[in-house]
Amino acid sequence: MPHPILCVGSVALDTIETPFGKARDALGGSATYFSYSASLLSPVRLVAVVGADFPREHVEVLRKRKVDLSGLQVAAGGRTFRWQGKFGENLNEAITLRTDLNVFETFRPHIPEKFRDSPIVFLANIDPELQMEVLSQVRRPKLVLCDTMNLWIEIKLGALRKLLRKVDVLTINEGEARLLTGKLNLAACARDILKMGPGRVVIKRGEYGATMFTRSEFFALPAYPLEEIRDPTGAGDTFAGGLVGDLARNGRFGEDAFRRAMIRGSVHASFIVEDFSLQGLRRAGPAARARRYRDFLCFTSVGGRLR
Amino acid sequence: MPHPILCVGSVALDTIETPFGKARDALGGSATYFSYSASLLSPVRLVAVVGADFPREHVEVLRKRKVDLSGLQVAAGGRTFRWQGKFGENLNEAITLRTDLNVFETFRPHIPEKFRDSPIVFLANIDPELQMEVLSQVRRPKLVLCDTMNLWIEIKLGALRKLLRKVDVLTINEGEARLLTGKLNLAACARDILKMGPGRVVIKRGEYGATMFTRSEFFALPAYPLEEIRDPTGAGDTFAGGLVGDLARNGRFGEDAFRRAMIRGSVHASFIVEDFSLQGLRRAGPAARARRYRDFLCFTSVGGRLR
Repeated sequence: MPHPILCVGSVALDTIETPFGKARDALGGSATYFSYSASLLSPVRLVAVVGADFPREHVEVLRKRKVDLSGLQVAAGGRTFRWQGKFGENLNEAITLRTDLNVFETFRPHIPEKFRDSPIVFLANIDPELQMEVLSQVRRPKLVLCDTMNLWIEIKLGALRKLLRKVDVLTINEGEARLLTGKLNLAACARDILKMGPGRVVIKRGEYGATMFTRSEFFALPAYPLEEIRDPTGAGDTFAGGLVGDLARNGRFGEDAFRRAMIRGSVHASFIVEDFSLQGLRRAGPAARARRYRDFLCFTSVGGRLR
Repeated sequence: MPHPILCVGSVALDTIETPFGKARDALGGSATYFSYSASLLSPVRLVAVVGADFPREHVEVLRKRKVDLSGLQVAAGGRTFRWQGKFGENLNEAITLRTDLNVFETFRPHIPEKFRDSPIVFLANIDPELQMEVLSQVRRPKLVLCDTMNLWIEIKLGALRKLLRKVDVLTINEGEARLLTGKLNLAACARDILKMGPGRVVIKRGEYGATMFTRSEFFALPAYPLEEIRDPTGAGDTFAGGLVGDLARNGRFGEDAFRRAMIRGSVHASFIVEDFSLQGLRRAGPAARARRYRDFLCFTSVGGRLR
């Protein structure tokens, strides 16, 4: 019986330019990528806010995936959060050209009563004070995971550190892990983060894959070796969606479960970067996803390789 | 019965500065790191040149490892090849401060008769014209591997491409792979390199580990998660030494053999970066090396984790 996942984060309209094309006001946001990805594996309950300008067809994308949208507030007269970014030849790093918070300026997450006993909570990248407000509204979840970004490390470090004491797993990218700890060496970063509260940290490294640390375990997974990456936007949230979706589906949170879940996250991320917005993952059917999952087992297997 | 390995490359005196210390005229060079590392697993036959100033105790380091030094020329009156480099906070990239070719300016590799039927040949990083001269002197080796560097890609691309048509495996670092192919994407780099001749390419990625491509297989291994790296000099050659030493010891050159050999290479490299020159690996005994080998199996294993 899969566990439902509560996800709170941003739903956005993204305008993105990469060396391979452009997208304007495309469906984006941390909670969008996460929810779509996780919903391929487990039921998802979304809490977020959009403006009155948010296109109905975008809502339909999530509704079709059976994401529970009871917590999606529509701010009358407000404009949806917008992000404009650019990727250069080096697809590892986004350059933010513009951020319009719009409805997020006054957003306060309200967790619907029927979501409050969600066993798994994913706090996608938003202001850590809002992430904390979410936690204060839920009852005894089995597993709490969160993500964050440079901005909050820079301007809300106190709130973020307070939050970290309450979460089981932090997902964070490599540059953010360095910023958060002031360390360059990744193992040292991980050790410091594990002292801040989380018992597990998953470090996302773009084309280098992802690594996971607990106080006693280390695991590393490469990224899927793609020759064409059109748009890396949302890769980290999609990865987290696959990871958490897989954990929720299996209902186990031990080392092996997390390792397998990381593969699932990497599979979903490998599809998302192949096209703009959610298109790459939307196109990938169950057979294609299962094939890449098996590929990952092959890529990392030594000796008794699985075929 | 382990296969003997013929290695041709540089033996040098390195002067290195890293954020963690300095070393002056330390034992270094591509063939030195390779030979020491490989000799922990298989017999090594070294062909290189040093000057009359080369310290006897450095020769003893290799002799004690039973490296066959019959091919080590001592150029009377000549000075040993010297490299001076520096690593900044980002330990991934060396800044070359000075290179004195000295005896390498006139070096012509002469392969002693008793080395000419070596079943495995490793052409460590030297001028590709000299690497080719080595190949012309050996008889039907079972496996030929080579390494190279930015300099040769820039100034001797023709000779390098001619050589690549004759080698089975290229070991190369990530930046060099990009320079050689003009591609940024690593999978695209690998595909291009595989078109140049080698049936297999092993791409060294520093703290990100190493990846291996054939036309049909992909394998990736993380680096050992060390908190303290004192000097990355020689990590690539030490990795290659462990890789080739392991292949030679087992006498098998299939996909699984290469995967296990990559672990061996990564283990040796993990020790070399913990201290200057060869010290880190010299200190590591068989038990410590075996422990890290098992650690690597754990780091990458999904499901049936080995303990």
